[in-house]
Amino acid sequence: MEPGTARIAVDLLGGDDAPAVVVDGALRAVRADPDLHLLLVGPTEVAAAVTDALTPVQRARITVRPVHAAAGPAHHAPRADSTVRAAVAAVRDGTADALVSAGSTGATVSAAALGFGRWDDVRHPALVATLPAVSGPVVLLDVGGSLEPRPATLARHALLGAAYAAVAHAVAAPRVGLLSVGTEAGKGDRPRKAADPLLAAATLPCGARYVGLVEGYDLSIGARADVVVTDGFTGNVLLKAIEGAYAMAGGPPEIGGAPRAAALLGVAGTVVVCHGAAEPADVASGIALAAHLWRRRATDRVRALLAGAPAHSSPSDSIDTEVSP
Amino acid sequence: MEPGTARIAVDLLGGDDAPAVVVDGALRAVRADPDLHLLLVGPTEVAAAVTDALTPVQRARITVRPVHAAAGPAHHAPRADSTVRAAVAAVRDGTADALVSAGSTGATVSAAALGFGRWDDVRHPALVATLPAVSGPVVLLDVGGSLEPRPATLARHALLGAAYAAVAHAVAAPRVGLLSVGTEAGKGDRPRKAADPLLAAATLPCGARYVGLVEGYDLSIGARADVVVTDGFTGNVLLKAIEGAYAMAGGPPEIGGAPRAAALLGVAGTVVVCHGAAEPADVASGIALAAHLWRRRATDRVRALLAGAPAHSSPSDSIDTEVSP
Repeated sequence: MEPGTARIAVDLLGGDDAPAVVVDGALRAVRADPDLHLLLVGPTEVAAAVTDALTPVQRARITVRPVHAAAGPAHHAPRADSTVRAAVAAVRDGTADALVSAGSTGATVSAAALGFGRWDDVRHPALVATLPAVSGPVVLLDVGGSLEPRPATLARHALLGAAYAAVAHAVAAPRVGLLSVGTEAGKGDRPRKAADPLLAAATLPCGARYVGLVEGYDLSIGARADVVVTDGFTGNVLLKAIEGAYAMAGGPPEIGGAPRAAALLGVAGTVVVCHGAAEPADVASGIALAAHLWRRRATDRVRALLAGAPAHSSPSDSIDTEVSP
Repeated sequence: MEPGTARIAVDLLGGDDAPAVVVDGALRAVRADPDLHLLLVGPTEVAAAVTDALTPVQRARITVRPVHAAAGPAHHAPRADSTVRAAVAAVRDGTADALVSAGSTGATVSAAALGFGRWDDVRHPALVATLPAVSGPVVLLDVGGSLEPRPATLARHALLGAAYAAVAHAVAAPRVGLLSVGTEAGKGDRPRKAADPLLAAATLPCGARYVGLVEGYDLSIGARADVVVTDGFTGNVLLKAIEGAYAMAGGPPEIGGAPRAAALLGVAGTVVVCHGAAEPADVASGIALAAHLWRRRATDRVRALLAGAPAHSSPSDSIDTEVSP
């Protein structure tokens, strides 16, 4: 764990089993990291369940922002008085450094985009998950930020993933692969076939290099790539399939299973989204990830690395056939 | 194992590690199933490696069709004198009942479509894999027959998968789910959103019913659906990701891991495709699957069940935006 204070806003009402799992997760996180401060965003009685369980010394690291409404239905922009909007506001006004929510991903992304603003040229922020693999972490993106496999988006994810692997996980010269159905050039559906030459032609940050097509195995095994690029639909179902497989196999491997927390990249703030079905350990992992990203100033550094990359008005846009929803 | 003779044509030259793994796989299959007959299609010296290792009684169940050329590059139609074309011809002329190849999937599908003909209204045959799960087998399709997520194709896969689960695996009243990023209605990318009402409106064979959206977990755990419908790109990367996860977790669960053999549905013959990286046990499983499908006359029965289903010139075609390659 890196040193340095990190002040993390926690959405007490986000998650299928909120607030109980969020309370438990917050307690674990506070006990594990002596430099961690939490801003608990939610009903005061829920926040009290956290503070009551802590020692006076630990309690000194807790602040509360009383809010009573959850974000509401996933397909609507979150209510202005919701916990997730309040958590975003707390980061924006400098009361916290980063935020974590296990609420609806759509609501969190909306609130973050609204409150922080998007990066230039980013229409849909990406969700980035890190899987432990034998040869080091494997960064998988997108895992649900946007769902359509647009070639230009896949090319952007290659840059984003390379920068994130280097900044967040200290991977030197990350190897970037495009997920497909085989490793031979030309394998894949039309978006992959269109994206492959875009990735091959891209100038990747942090000494990263494109290693071509990779397969499903490479996510867990990690021998071939440090960054695996895919669309949010595929990434999301993959992550859950790996989690299911580990459950079937009697539990994840010792180095860790499929993550249930992902970093949101593409908004001007540090945001971690936890799985709606997160358990206390997952919430604690999400809080630890947010603190880690903040301590490394990962979001700002990734953004700066991408600002130096070629603009998005490239020929790739002509391949992008997505219509507006 | 069901009784009854099954005569399986085996492509000795298909697979990354052919012929060695195919020879080993054929030996295992012959020793395991006393009613299995093999037609070995390939060089005589390779076939001799099989027959030399068998007892005289076992050897009486082996026939050889001498062929010397492998199928050639995956992106070309297989050569007329290739082992896979010869295996198809042997099934067509009645020398064998079904065929197995671990060669290029593209070449096998081409050879089968050319030699057997496609079912009415089927442009791209589907590859169907069966995963062992806690509550019984889970049928996953497509795993690579066609790669583009066309809503009409997804709807057809629902029918195909329901019929296959009932016929090949004796699943009563199969529950059919559409793989997506969440279970709430409306979750998913555009092809999934378009396919969901098509599946809900479809009349499924064998008492099957559509249970709505399912997630990646449901593939391995199987509590929610007996048939999981997806596009061939997603299915292929998923299957390989599950295989990678089991490898990471120290091996597949006792009930079995991700299959490396899949049935080809949509051509007028019984065909099993093995993974190019198949090991001897995988080839033996593929041969056993082909024998099982033949003994149940699964291909013909699935085809007959689908012939009774509504024709393909439905309103769904207007949603299909795929252009010809």
